[in-house]
Amino acid sequence: SNNLVSDVEMFNSAVANAKPGDEIVLANGVWNNAELVFDAKGTAENPITLTVEEKGMVTLEGESNLQIAGEHLIIKGLVFKNGYTPTNAVISFRKNREELANNCRLTECVIDNFNNPERHVQDYWVTIYGKNNRLDHNHIVGKKNLGVTMIVGLDTKGSVENNHQIDHNYFGPRPTFGNNGGETLRIGTSHHALENSGTIVESNYFDRCNGEIETVSSKSANNIYRYNTFFECTGTLTMRHGNETLVEGNVFLGNNKPNTGGIRIINEDQIVKNNYLFGVTGYRFRGAFVVMNGVPNSTPNRYMPVMNSKLLNNTYVNCDNILFCAGSDDERSAPPTSTEIAGNIFYNDHKDNIFTAFDDVSGISFHDNIVGQNINTDIASGFTPADIKLVKNEQGFLIPTSDKIKTPIIISDKIGTKENTGTSWYSKEDRTIALNSGNTIAVKPGINTITAATRDSKPGDIIELTSGETYVLTKAAKVNHPLTFKSSGKEKAIILFERMMAFEIENGGSLALENLKFDGASAPDYAGNSVISTSKKSMTNNYKLFIDNCDFEDLIVNHSFDVLRVSKGTFADTISIQNSKFKNITGHIAALDTETDDIGAYNAEYVIMKNNILTDVQGVALRLYRGGKDESTLGPFLEMENNVFNHVGFGKKNKYDAALSLYGVQSNRIENNIFNETRPVDMHLVVGEPIVNILNNDFYKVDDMRVTGDQKYTVANSLSVDPKFS
Amino acid sequence: SNNLVSDVEMFNSAVANAKPGDEIVLANGVWNNAELVFDAKGTAENPITLTVEEKGMVTLEGESNLQIAGEHLIIKGLVFKNGYTPTNAVISFRKNREELANNCRLTECVIDNFNNPERHVQDYWVTIYGKNNRLDHNHIVGKKNLGVTMIVGLDTKGSVENNHQIDHNYFGPRPTFGNNGGETLRIGTSHHALENSGTIVESNYFDRCNGEIETVSSKSANNIYRYNTFFECTGTLTMRHGNETLVEGNVFLGNNKPNTGGIRIINEDQIVKNNYLFGVTGYRFRGAFVVMNGVPNSTPNRYMPVMNSKLLNNTYVNCDNILFCAGSDDERSAPPTSTEIAGNIFYNDHKDNIFTAFDDVSGISFHDNIVGQNINTDIASGFTPADIKLVKNEQGFLIPTSDKIKTPIIISDKIGTKENTGTSWYSKEDRTIALNSGNTIAVKPGINTITAATRDSKPGDIIELTSGETYVLTKAAKVNHPLTFKSSGKEKAIILFERMMAFEIENGGSLALENLKFDGASAPDYAGNSVISTSKKSMTNNYKLFIDNCDFEDLIVNHSFDVLRVSKGTFADTISIQNSKFKNITGHIAALDTETDDIGAYNAEYVIMKNNILTDVQGVALRLYRGGKDESTLGPFLEMENNVFNHVGFGKKNKYDAALSLYGVQSNRIENNIFNETRPVDMHLVVGEPIVNILNNDFYKVDDMRVTGDQKYTVANSLSVDPKFS
Ligand SMILES: [Ca+2]
Ligand SMILES: [Ca+2]
Repeated sequence: SNNLVSDVEMFNSAVANAKPGDEIVLANGVWNNAELVFDAKGTAENPITLTVEEKGMVTLEGESNLQIAGEHLIIKGLVFKNGYTPTNAVISFRKNREELANNCRLTECVIDNFNNPERHVQDYWVTIYGKNNRLDHNHIVGKKNLGVTMIVGLDTKGSVENNHQIDHNYFGPRPTFGNNGGETLRIGTSHHALENSGTIVESNYFDRCNGEIETVSSKSANNIYRYNTFFECTGTLTMRHGNETLVEGNVFLGNNKPNTGGIRIINEDQIVKNNYLFGVTGYRFRGAFVVMNGVPNSTPNRYMPVMNSKLLNNTYVNCDNILFCAGSDDERSAPPTSTEIAGNIFYNDHKDNIFTAFDDVSGISFHDNIVGQNINTDIASGFTPADIKLVKNEQGFLIPTSDKIKTPIIISDKIGTKENTGTSWYSKEDRTIALNSGNTIAVKPGINTITAATRDSKPGDIIELTSGETYVLTKAAKVNHPLTFKSSGKEKAIILFERMMAFEIENGGSLALENLKFDGASAPDYAGNSVISTSKKSMTNNYKLFIDNCDFEDLIVNHSFDVLRVSKGTFADTISIQNSKFKNITGHIAALDTETDDIGAYNAEYVIMKNNILTDVQGVALRLYRGGKDESTLGPFLEMENNVFNHVGFGKKNKYDAALSLYGVQSNRIENNIFNETRPVDMHLVVGEPIVNILNNDFYKVDDMRVTGDQKYTVANSLSVDPKFS
Repeated sequence: SNNLVSDVEMFNSAVANAKPGDEIVLANGVWNNAELVFDAKGTAENPITLTVEEKGMVTLEGESNLQIAGEHLIIKGLVFKNGYTPTNAVISFRKNREELANNCRLTECVIDNFNNPERHVQDYWVTIYGKNNRLDHNHIVGKKNLGVTMIVGLDTKGSVENNHQIDHNYFGPRPTFGNNGGETLRIGTSHHALENSGTIVESNYFDRCNGEIETVSSKSANNIYRYNTFFECTGTLTMRHGNETLVEGNVFLGNNKPNTGGIRIINEDQIVKNNYLFGVTGYRFRGAFVVMNGVPNSTPNRYMPVMNSKLLNNTYVNCDNILFCAGSDDERSAPPTSTEIAGNIFYNDHKDNIFTAFDDVSGISFHDNIVGQNINTDIASGFTPADIKLVKNEQGFLIPTSDKIKTPIIISDKIGTKENTGTSWYSKEDRTIALNSGNTIAVKPGINTITAATRDSKPGDIIELTSGETYVLTKAAKVNHPLTFKSSGKEKAIILFERMMAFEIENGGSLALENLKFDGASAPDYAGNSVISTSKKSMTNNYKLFIDNCDFEDLIVNHSFDVLRVSKGTFADTISIQNSKFKNITGHIAALDTETDDIGAYNAEYVIMKNNILTDVQGVALRLYRGGKDESTLGPFLEMENNVFNHVGFGKKNKYDAALSLYGVQSNRIENNIFNETRPVDMHLVVGEPIVNILNNDFYKVDDMRVTGDQKYTVANSLSVDPKFS
């Protein structure tokens, strides 16, 4: 029978009475706080279907979720948005550890930004248990809180050797999470690293799945990944645990975007063939192809050495890093053995040194590989230089051709595309709104004119203040979408504020400040003011902050008056401070130090400070902290260039006892700065191989740099010359 | 004319047209997000009045506030509740620095729990500027966020020598804030320490105003405090800055409650006379009477030495600490001079040593004081022992009598009482609900039965689980009022949980756990789980957590699995963990370390751990952190007694490298514990004189205790004996 149900009670009763062949239809409308348990038994011939009255017209919102248990069930057309699950899964293929779903199909379902408001509270969106389930043509976009988007669980016998098929799903953008737990798909766990999964993942489209360095984490044996497209993903398909995985016919389109990744291989009997990678730029564990070193006699949940594995007939076009024996260290000391790398093509028109070996590669047999003429390699043989031209094929891929390439390079027409994945009725359009994309709004000087203009603004707007005039905020301006504030002419508008912050970046907000002057004279007489702060609440959306050509003066009404103050549970894609002056400040310019759990989390991915002048700043110019030893992220990235630091860091309350304090930062570029009579630079280097270049700086009357942790870093061309400020 | 106005627009128009003698009447109902500016000019004979249709029937809610500017205005009957001000004041006696209120009266107004939801975002409730204003019969209760409740500002000429009168106000309970900025009344600021204020504060009732150690902070000259009652306030009336202050005829009823305070004196020409203090128990800066040492040649905003001051004819009944030269240290090295302490009566029936001198008292002339027979003092003369009896007077005060007491001790009938302060129409009833004051609710074993019972519970309820049965939480139990969970019989109920926490204490919640067993086996495979956590959002309400006779086992699914995890912006009155077992845990029992701004904030006032057994805990038993050097609080207080620590603190991720890590804790009692093969105890002692007693502990195979900071502490009767666990 066909049951149109309009509330959970009716749904429950329909489920309780469902017979093979029945259809349960959710009525159009918003289902708020609906926790559905679809527990029924259909048959192969007559499955029971849970579907919707009209596709796109049924949404599950608030604290909603779905548990599936039983046999031969089809779930079709549900949309989860505007809410989050109160449990650990939005859609789960089980009711509990005993009652699983088998032979079920989830199709044309949507989970769209269904995020727990707490960034660091964990959940999954889809947890797959049981056997023989298919998930196809689903649309899964915008996971922003802790936890893998989709997992295949193997924790009971009923879920191993599962024969699941995950195909034609659209995995939409997942932004950088800034910690472990940002994977898009994981099959298995470290606790069940040796289990046989037997899951097929094919013809899916991974669109900018950038949560962390593992876009796909394969943690079990016997899985197949084929015909998937990884579009500009800053992560890799990683064979983290388990053997006998086949990775075939996938496309990785890095498109020369920074930090895009390819395939990373660990364990035994892995086969990687006929994949096509274009413009994959990542390095370290995020390279285009990464063969890891293993741990001798490793437990299954550490790093099993690579053995009996094959990399065959793959095509690397403009991929920057092919890494062998990656992760080699005291513990990971076992290089690959009995492994074959053959028939691959490596072409790069802008980089000659794309191969790096971190340990002994004699256990890898290289043969019949073709490289572009310009490519250098230390590996003795197995690479034939060829005069390669790129030719666009019918699908639009740039295909290397050469008389040395005998077998034509073909991208399967089974490849997942934006068009053939997800649903036809749910838009894949990008809804991101950029800074400076809106209207310019002139705002008059006065009390709270900025606050009001902020409240009334639209995303992307530019709020223009009258040059040279004074603005007073007795209420903070709450920035909950991208907004720019600037002066109308050359002379800076002046901003005074009576609250603990002038601007508060709320969830969804990004802020650009240009050509403004901030004076701290009206701020409250308490410790802990800041000119800008993030929301004290968790923010699932990453924010951007750009400060350009601004002056910050006399932040001195009380101690610990910072320029920027960030809260735990917030994450910046970019914090850029350029061409600005900071003078007479009792706190820090920016202490990005609130993720103190030491589990790998941090506050900002890219931090850029260029061409600034700091004078009499009692706190640090920057504290950037990433605690813990997690290897799931490669940030934060720091660029600090052409700044002048003059008397910085000497405040008694500056607990970092430094002008610049960096802890666990993964990429450190500090170049062409002048440090004049400041506290020293302090760095603690941990995890992987932090990149540290401290070049061409002048340290005058500055104590020696302190470096703890790893002792691998580059300091060169340091001067100690009086900069002769007047 | 009499204008009944029903929205802000009508109000504004009535104000714009107001003539002397007019009355503007707010219509009954909720005024939501109403920001009122009452800017008008009445005359002494014909003031303009802002009042309400019916007292108690007009409430300003949401983001509301009131600014008063002009002359001869009366504001009467407004109630602010269910919201907070978006600016720095709820009621301000000015529009801006230029436009002030003079000759105005605020009467019978109420501000009730009108708190910014962010505990550490600052505001005031009433800011008084201008001259000749009167605030009387107002009801001000429940400030819980950062910032003094009521201030008199002196920042422009128009506000000094102000002749304000603050009388017959009811200052209701303000709970411990756990940081600076919890004062109830402040007159002046450090920046204007030498200004003449001339404010009279009389006949007010301060009911448990416990925000911090200064209930009243007098920071200007020439103020009068008389006939006020301080009922069980854990703070003092402090003459922080300014000279010629008169403190006369006040009553301080400590009623033997812990940490109640009296009068603290700094600066010159201060007079303290005819005050009555009963059962004031506080010590250090919170004593019943505290004469501070000063800083030689002090700037006005540090500590001016006490000079030419008088303490005359005050009565101290059962007050525990009378302190001279308090705060003496390297900086505060100038003892009082030309000061007179005469005619006072000191009676204490349970403590003989109530006087302490921290430096030279030769600059104080003591004479004609009377002390109880039992009281000892090192001060050579000026104290006459007397046989004192306490006799209850008509007002109910216990009055010392003796043939040596010639002048009868009289409490003025102008004294503020709960009855003659505040309004007659707004209840002063205490709405606090205690743990275990509600019904007992039996809850069946199963999935989320606890979650559902929690959701459906009433404040004070006891939720009873079936002994020996298993409960599974796939959703966290959110505790938003006081709740107790316990087993029905002797055998413990077992609780498993699939979220990152089993219990989440939300704003308003308190939690007692009795006779339960927690097993971490079902928790998510991520770092950072905990059995109990506070809300990740700021909590303005202090919470209590009692754990008694519980077992916590196998919290090991991933690293950093804690028992209790607290968030920044939350504060516990009490965390008590007693008679419980902790075994096999990858994280901490409790790391109370999230207030990292180092401005004096911390996470819990009282921490008690007694009679517990900890085995194989990788993190710390306790990290308790109070950063900064603020002297506004005397917590946290730690009692750690009769515990067994067995292999505690050895986890690689335990960054505290200790079994017990205490930083800035003000009172440390560590007695009768056994430390067996654990990491050591680590203490950093700062601020004032932390009390440290480490007595009768057995340290077996434990590295030496590390103590940094001050080196004044007591370690005695330590053993190093094998406890011979099997
Ligand atoms: Ca990961
Ligand atoms: Ca204070």
